[in-house]
Amino acid sequence: MLPDPLQNLIFALERLPGIGPKTASRLAFYLLRAPDELVNSLAEALAGLKAQIVFCEECFNITAAGRRRCEICDDPRRDASLLCVVEEPLDVLALERVGAFQGKYHVLHGLLSPIEGIGPDDLKIAPLLDRVAAGGVREVILATNPSMEGDATALYLQKQLQPLGVQVTRLARGLPVGGDLEYADQNTLLRALTGRQEMR
Amino acid sequence: MLPDPLQNLIFALERLPGIGPKTASRLAFYLLRAPDELVNSLAEALAGLKAQIVFCEECFNITAAGRRRCEICDDPRRDASLLCVVEEPLDVLALERVGAFQGKYHVLHGLLSPIEGIGPDDLKIAPLLDRVAAGGVREVILATNPSMEGDATALYLQKQLQPLGVQVTRLARGLPVGGDLEYADQNTLLRALTGRQEMR
Repeated sequence: MLPDPLQNLIFALERLPGIGPKTASRLAFYLLRAPDELVNSLAEALAGLKAQIVFCEECFNITAAGRRRCEICDDPRRDASLLCVVEEPLDVLALERVGAFQGKYHVLHGLLSPIEGIGPDDLKIAPLLDRVAAGGVREVILATNPSMEGDATALYLQKQLQPLGVQVTRLARGLPVGGDLEYADQNTLLRALTGRQEMR
Repeated sequence: MLPDPLQNLIFALERLPGIGPKTASRLAFYLLRAPDELVNSLAEALAGLKAQIVFCEECFNITAAGRRRCEICDDPRRDASLLCVVEEPLDVLALERVGAFQGKYHVLHGLLSPIEGIGPDDLKIAPLLDRVAAGGVREVILATNPSMEGDATALYLQKQLQPLGVQVTRLARGLPVGGDLEYADQNTLLRALTGRQEMR
């Protein structure tokens, strides 16, 4: 029914996460009427994406092609004795936005998930252990998501890291700032209660 | 903070309707990890889109480049005396999916909207009047959306079409099939009541 070029675009859009057949059609028709400049910039950004982005050899965060290490790893002002372990590059971005962390990162590129068949070898865990074993790291902050998979991954990492004689910490759990106690789920409330802190 | 190629893609994605900064980041990072084949097919579909899609000279529905008229206009089995007027090509698709309409279409490419500065000259209204004036059309079904703008456009078209001696109809309004009377809004319920039909 639809001309092929449009149908191909709809099929390609449908394969993106969170985009169903209806949204894909809507986007495709929008692009059909959008300025050439928008469509072209999108096509070009996509075409160049893979070739122009590489992973940092040290922390596996993303960085521009041509660099071996990312900007953070190359920055001598960052504290190399403090390592923050995250699931994906987006998490690095979120933490950098806070601006309170002065250490370095390590990106796992996933979480352990037996259901999805993701084991330790599928993540950047061996390079993390190598980094810590090489010395100079005082504390490893496990900043994986506060989810079942995030917790399981943190637990696994803790067991691997402990023998290396490094301090292992986990991000605090509790009520989100600006949240409402009344609407907090039971687990969060329990965590907030057991993790309560003395006011000084 | 982010490498330029990734940031460019996020900026481009953000400009699409219904995609905010967070969704744009998520999509961009997904594409970074997605198979090359998906990214390439998306880039190619976008690059070829504008050049390969044209509008039918008769009904202004979309069609593949190289054709002057769309498949429906070219189909001798379709009833040319019955014209269904819709806002956009997606509406043609929706009606074709039903499979109950055997006439031809006319795509307005928008609705009248004084607030957005869209007047009759911005839509394909003149070609519609020309088509009807040329003769051979018995009935014009106004299938614009049952919204304020859709109704206003239908009313305007009705006034323009009436002098041409053609029958002008509008799609029925009422309770959606499978819907729940209890949850229907007042306007829909009012329409369903005033438009009630005798059971035979």
